[in-house]
Amino acid sequence: MNHPEFIKVFAPATVANVCCGFDVLGFALEAPGDEVWARKSETPGITITAVAGAQGLTANPQENVIGVVAQKMLEALDLSIGLELQLHKGMPVGSGLGSSAASSAATAFAVNEVLGKPFSTQDLVIFAMEGERKASGSAHADNVAPSLLGGFVLVRSYEPLDVVPLGVPVDLYCTVLYPQIELKTSLARSILRQEIPLKKGIKQWGNLAGLMAGLLLKDYALIGRSLHDEIFEPERSVLIPLFKEVKAAALAAGALGCGISGSGPSIFALSATKEQAEAARKAMETVYLGSGIETKSYVSKVPPQGVRLVKSPALQPVTHELL
Amino acid sequence: MNHPEFIKVFAPATVANVCCGFDVLGFALEAPGDEVWARKSETPGITITAVAGAQGLTANPQENVIGVVAQKMLEALDLSIGLELQLHKGMPVGSGLGSSAASSAATAFAVNEVLGKPFSTQDLVIFAMEGERKASGSAHADNVAPSLLGGFVLVRSYEPLDVVPLGVPVDLYCTVLYPQIELKTSLARSILRQEIPLKKGIKQWGNLAGLMAGLLLKDYALIGRSLHDEIFEPERSVLIPLFKEVKAAALAAGALGCGISGSGPSIFALSATKEQAEAARKAMETVYLGSGIETKSYVSKVPPQGVRLVKSPALQPVTHELL
Repeated sequence: MNHPEFIKVFAPATVANVCCGFDVLGFALEAPGDEVWARKSETPGITITAVAGAQGLTANPQENVIGVVAQKMLEALDLSIGLELQLHKGMPVGSGLGSSAASSAATAFAVNEVLGKPFSTQDLVIFAMEGERKASGSAHADNVAPSLLGGFVLVRSYEPLDVVPLGVPVDLYCTVLYPQIELKTSLARSILRQEIPLKKGIKQWGNLAGLMAGLLLKDYALIGRSLHDEIFEPERSVLIPLFKEVKAAALAAGALGCGISGSGPSIFALSATKEQAEAARKAMETVYLGSGIETKSYVSKVPPQGVRLVKSPALQPVTHELL
Repeated sequence: MNHPEFIKVFAPATVANVCCGFDVLGFALEAPGDEVWARKSETPGITITAVAGAQGLTANPQENVIGVVAQKMLEALDLSIGLELQLHKGMPVGSGLGSSAASSAATAFAVNEVLGKPFSTQDLVIFAMEGERKASGSAHADNVAPSLLGGFVLVRSYEPLDVVPLGVPVDLYCTVLYPQIELKTSLARSILRQEIPLKKGIKQWGNLAGLMAGLLLKDYALIGRSLHDEIFEPERSVLIPLFKEVKAAALAAGALGCGISGSGPSIFALSATKEQAEAARKAMETVYLGSGIETKSYVSKVPPQGVRLVKSPALQPVTHELL
């Protein structure tokens, strides 16, 4: 059998939690993101023939999330074919930007294409969640769902899974600053208390309801007033050097709100215009100057599309410095 | 001085909490509700010359919420004029339908009219909240705000107060069943734990975000999937005989969701059509037949308007059996 062409898929980074939407809300970025390439192979089972763009990631298909996701998909169809996968990381690992989710989402989409699209988008979310389970021990959906669906996505419920795509009801620009410190998701989760004060819970769901209303009613001021996290940010932000100063700088530069992306250490800010998002980026970067901590930063419109085929004529080509 | 004509104001009953929106969400009903009549008087201070339609309510202006609300308004303006008030209750007290809120909202609106409208609607919410503080010890806004503003109202924050009117983005019909048992708000609040499990908190704010999205995207199925309360209903519903059976009957009759109105004992259900709301009413009433508990029930569209002048030519006249 000749080698078929690779199906090449890009899945974007994502911001989960979004201040007040812990474990239930996330949104997609345009970039950065990961690419997963997939094709059928004569070798039975799953083979990972390249892991590029990141240090320390294994090519063992039972240990790398892309192998885990693909394996679950083959098992669901009771298929014993061979699949060759390549992972081209285009975003930092352990950044709080949904790195494992982007790899998992790209895999789910790519393998579905290779197999002739037997699965629904909802199915792909469930398979990609298995990558999250492998990466963090918890099959959360608030990164994989926006990476697959684009825009904002609400995960209303896990049992049963209820993923609600909200699209992009209002133009928003996201600034992300990634301070290159190591912060394990498992550590960031382990410091969370398993009980929360009722009063703080009421504030949190009031803010989340306000954020939903702000997004859907296109009310920037309400979005800004709602982007608060009184439960998790106080506990988690102590793990991120200069967090308070970066947040203050972003807000002073005109951002609507600012918080921890996922479980950190990346910090995100949302702005109404690209100019404000760029001003926030500059202000946020300035805080880390001379701190000895290296940073990466991104400005991205919140896009209506998430995962996509690369080099498909109908779609926007992806420029990707690592490939 | 001749007696001026009374300004006559109707304010509707309201459903607060709405399953997943504890302390932050409420909506107005068309009826029942209370009327407050107000006019200037030669007698200095506040005099209540009638309290009709309910047993056991005092005419002492320092003890009745309508006197308390009016007094706060005069104090805010540093006015020492005389005001005569009458309260015509058109709804049951202690029912969980915002009885004190309706009286307080009607008072705030009526006194503002008498004084020549010195206050904004936001101000009126704050004054009416003083009636709630008097009635229950807690100045909550999730009944007074929808009684004043109509439709659905989000109270995003209390400090500072941030009241977000959502209007009526989608047609909804509310069935209310009031089982005539005594249940003090203070008791219903006292059984609540001051700490909640994080897992239940996540479910609750996922559902509230789903409810907001369902309302604003006009998605009845999503509204139905979101109308759950996993924190408070299990604790409070034990105080309401036959609650589980009534809820099951409402859902079986086609209602989108069902829960405790405010802190009970009234039970509300939301439906997409008037026919379903009427079917739910019949099913809910049937549960209590032969139980020895008397019930009152109402079906009301969720209306865009709340408080309103009575007998003003521009407005719908209010038919009110108690007057």
